[in-house]
Amino acid sequence: MAQKAFQDYYSDDFSHCYGCGRLNEHGLQIKSYWDGEQSVTKFVPNEHHIAIPGFVYGGLIASLIDCHSTGTAAAASYRAEGRNMDTEPELRFVTASIKVDYLAPTPLGVELEIRGKVIEVTKKKVIVEATITANNKTCAKGNVVAVRMPDTMLQG
Amino acid sequence: MAQKAFQDYYSDDFSHCYGCGRLNEHGLQIKSYWDGEQSVTKFVPNEHHIAIPGFVYGGLIASLIDCHSTGTAAAASYRAEGRNMDTEPELRFVTASIKVDYLAPTPLGVELEIRGKVIEVTKKKVIVEATITANNKTCAKGNVVAVRMPDTMLQG
Repeated sequence: MAQKAFQDYYSDDFSHCYGCGRLNEHGLQIKSYWDGEQSVTKFVPNEHHIAIPGFVYGGLIASLIDCHSTGTAAAASYRAEGRNMDTEPELRFVTASIKVDYLAPTPLGVELEIRGKVIEVTKKKVIVEATITANNKTCAKGNVVAVRMPDTMLQG
Repeated sequence: MAQKAFQDYYSDDFSHCYGCGRLNEHGLQIKSYWDGEQSVTKFVPNEHHIAIPGFVYGGLIASLIDCHSTGTAAAASYRAEGRNMDTEPELRFVTASIKVDYLAPTPLGVELEIRGKVIEVTKKKVIVEATITANNKTCAKGNVVAVRMPDTMLQG
């Protein structure tokens, strides 16, 4: 896609996350984009992201939904303010809560598509619903409540 | 602890999981034990399990709660049947849904304690509530609905 990924707008300090940080060489480095009103990322799990032979482990599913949704929350907030993601002040979100329903076993060895739908945007909170699809079948659904990053997290 | 971990009773086929499989050399290899009526595991995140500097990324928190809870579900089911975990038939559980509330940022660099409390045990379903504590502070709470592994997952 020609767009720059949401995560590639994050400043260096916010780019170490295991799930989505471009500077975390051990991490998943997911890249999320707008696709109209929805956000989308694609990810091919590694063979060690296994639950039992043939299937993806649930913690990875939750991690993909989590980071894709906090990225979507940030992007949606810039959109709501009519600003580009490279403008100040930087808007970063953390997860207040996540719920994932595993609808079907997720096959290992194929590309997963994670889509986010923005349900609510306020100044302090964004709610995102997400789906994970493999081979055109929805394997998991998620709901993430993302909140503006609290100052207490900036003192690490 | 003198007990054998729940996960060390899993047969080889069920020991590849990224979160809890003893045969997954890239994985987290968590080990869960009974502590009276509760289950407990301890885990020290790696420095690359970072969210932003100083804090653990949420996907790891969810993964720890997930695998600790499915292990607890299995152990609780054996207990309910009055059987040891090394007896047949083998009882394995997968996650139907997980909810995690992040109550406070989880500090990186210290040991985390994950505790599980069994809320409900039926033949097909076990509900586990979990907490994650760091430096004696509860950082996250989880609720996992674990179900007996469906046959469709055994055809991978």
